[in-house]
Amino acid sequence: MKKRKEMQLALQMVSGYGAEFSAWRMPGTDPAAYINTDGYVERAKLAEKGKFQMIFIADTPALTVDLGPQTPSFPMDPMLALMAVARETKHIGLVATLSTTFNYPYNIARQFKALDVISQGRVGWNAVTTSDPLAAANFGAQIASRKERYDMAHESIQIVQALWGSWESDAWTLDVEGGKFADMDKIQPINLQGQYYASRGPLPIPPSDQGQPVIFQAGGGEEGLELAGRYASGVYANPYDIESAREHRQALQQSAARFGRNPDDIKMYAGFMFSIGSTEEEALERRRQLMSFNPEEIPNRVRYLGSMVGLPLSVHSVDIDQPLATDMLKKAYANPMDPRSHRALELLKKGLSIRDVLAHGVINYHPVVAGTPVQVADFLEEWFLAGACDGFSVVPDIAYDGVADFVELVVPILQDRGLFHREYEGKTLRENMGVPYQYGRLKENNN
Amino acid sequence: MKKRKEMQLALQMVSGYGAEFSAWRMPGTDPAAYINTDGYVERAKLAEKGKFQMIFIADTPALTVDLGPQTPSFPMDPMLALMAVARETKHIGLVATLSTTFNYPYNIARQFKALDVISQGRVGWNAVTTSDPLAAANFGAQIASRKERYDMAHESIQIVQALWGSWESDAWTLDVEGGKFADMDKIQPINLQGQYYASRGPLPIPPSDQGQPVIFQAGGGEEGLELAGRYASGVYANPYDIESAREHRQALQQSAARFGRNPDDIKMYAGFMFSIGSTEEEALERRRQLMSFNPEEIPNRVRYLGSMVGLPLSVHSVDIDQPLATDMLKKAYANPMDPRSHRALELLKKGLSIRDVLAHGVINYHPVVAGTPVQVADFLEEWFLAGACDGFSVVPDIAYDGVADFVELVVPILQDRGLFHREYEGKTLRENMGVPYQYGRLKENNN
Repeated sequence: MKKRKEMQLALQMVSGYGAEFSAWRMPGTDPAAYINTDGYVERAKLAEKGKFQMIFIADTPALTVDLGPQTPSFPMDPMLALMAVARETKHIGLVATLSTTFNYPYNIARQFKALDVISQGRVGWNAVTTSDPLAAANFGAQIASRKERYDMAHESIQIVQALWGSWESDAWTLDVEGGKFADMDKIQPINLQGQYYASRGPLPIPPSDQGQPVIFQAGGGEEGLELAGRYASGVYANPYDIESAREHRQALQQSAARFGRNPDDIKMYAGFMFSIGSTEEEALERRRQLMSFNPEEIPNRVRYLGSMVGLPLSVHSVDIDQPLATDMLKKAYANPMDPRSHRALELLKKGLSIRDVLAHGVINYHPVVAGTPVQVADFLEEWFLAGACDGFSVVPDIAYDGVADFVELVVPILQDRGLFHREYEGKTLRENMGVPYQYGRLKENNN
Repeated sequence: MKKRKEMQLALQMVSGYGAEFSAWRMPGTDPAAYINTDGYVERAKLAEKGKFQMIFIADTPALTVDLGPQTPSFPMDPMLALMAVARETKHIGLVATLSTTFNYPYNIARQFKALDVISQGRVGWNAVTTSDPLAAANFGAQIASRKERYDMAHESIQIVQALWGSWESDAWTLDVEGGKFADMDKIQPINLQGQYYASRGPLPIPPSDQGQPVIFQAGGGEEGLELAGRYASGVYANPYDIESAREHRQALQQSAARFGRNPDDIKMYAGFMFSIGSTEEEALERRRQLMSFNPEEIPNRVRYLGSMVGLPLSVHSVDIDQPLATDMLKKAYANPMDPRSHRALELLKKGLSIRDVLAHGVINYHPVVAGTPVQVADFLEEWFLAGACDGFSVVPDIAYDGVADFVELVVPILQDRGLFHREYEGKTLRENMGVPYQYGRLKENNN
């Protein structure tokens, strides 16, 4: 009997606190988690205990938020955080974002490959272009056009992969008796010259246990699809509903096929947030508490919710601790431009108070389940079996206990349902993702 | 009574094997030490046990040697190696080279500052320009003129230091009750615009325990002196003799004074190599063995030695296992252009065989002592008391046992002679180097 297809899980590490705005203020959280590497290591170990395929650290090289009420969005330095985790874990994959716009390909190639060798083949590079003007300004640059940024990204990835392949796989002879450390005939310059980037090589680093790091991608649009189709084995996507997720996944698979690759060699991970309680009410209470830290944000959120369901909602005109009045509910409709609106309307119609509808995370930038472990597992099962994704990139609401809850309470349910593996399939990230070995550039991209 | 002035020690980590060409082939050495982070951590711990002020990782972003007979000169990635060491040590300083020519200042500032925060104030940046054409080619560039490279370095260091100071020292409020993570009025852009580099900032990283990383410098010439005088608290220098070392140190101190700094706030570390044996003969035998791995190199070395003492030496005309014949010795003279020649001639006149003169390391790029722990300590004492340097940047011949030997056998002698501390003076690298706190740019450089 063919084994049932299983989902994959990536744990998003964010900046040490969790996805929610006020997670840093929750009792139990280390307020200085931002600078505490132990926390990253601890959560990565938990994720490894839960057999997560990988941890994932997103990044933008800029201070992009108001640090008054809020914590930074990214770790102080993603590569250093991954290095700490690499030393203290054995199986879990280690993926970080590094901008193709504001890093030299040689430096990218070197640091990721070194980490890949050190971690015995567990590393992935999420290759993204940077479109944030604050980030550009940190490099004395203006934001380039979308086309230009993607042209740079193609050059960057091709140079990086060529550098990764600049030692033939048997070049490292390590012959102590014969006095031959490496075979220099098998270590050659790459001499790639693009319009934006160029590099001679070789990189002074031997192959890793998986050959070289896995390429991830996260950008949208036609340009993102092409980049993913050509190079990526994993894609972090942010769909709001099953339908758009499925479309995106199919588009990714078609793009891979267009570039001569097996459509199954590209895995899509859907962003997903959770708040776990022993009852749905307990999970909601957790999120109400998070919301309560920033009462000044509530008027905006109520207005935003109103715009999703076609109503002029305001804290002055409604009691947010009550369900919406029947006459208002009759006028409400889901904004067709915002896939999250259906969920918002559904909860309002169920008679939840406005505060509780907000607490369900309907205006978050990922789908949110606030509920019991079974409810979380149900959501993941529904999406996965509908072909919405190959797995999930999960973000805990509050990192300090959210990761442990997911690992201890949700993972066993998924395993019991045959939806998630009980053991790592292999030693490397490629093996555990089920994507093929690659060394150097793909032949298809050798032009 | 005033405490006797003590020397400082930095341990050069090289690429995992040791300074000598063939160290990777010595029995006991892990032939794969290049990719084994454990080795770096282990040696750093030994150095910490020996109260070394710091470890130091040099770097050039290129494969610069023939990996047939030889190992790489630098670790796969210096910052990742330091991160591993940071997690598993408590006191020792962590210094690495990163090129000002081929890294964006924002990326340098971010990674070093993150490591400085993580290590609780133990980090230093050796800011060097890159003049190696192989390295330039890895970045698609030609080597810029010396002037241009140093102009870039000034801009890079000033931007990096300004980014490091972009949070006022009390900006990180971490007020959980009041819901104020940081005081955004005290986190400001730097808006520096140079000819080569620019950055807006701020860097999203709070002050470290020592404020910010310590600047090191290693370049020579007038440009190097100016760069050091303006910014550096530590300088790695490579003098061959006491006289030139003393001159260089005085020039550094004068340069610091010229830029309004206390001359004593710049510390010079002289590069130094050692081979330790329980007798001088045992130490020499260790080096003879190292030489024996590459017999094909011996003819070149003999010729080179000849050129140092004005003789046309060749393996075909002399027996290298014999002392030089008296009539040849009479014609020999020390090449006035090469300070190492005096030592070479002295050893030849003592009647050592040519092989043994070479084994003493007379043609190495640092002074070498092959001898007993007392001989090593005598050398360090002589240089230090002569004012040749503030300390030494020591490179073991063979890393796997050389570091332990130095720590266990040489350090106690230095301590007993009152030449080296028995305990770390403070918690941060600045405190242990005895250099002042600095945060942001120096006022003198704010122009």
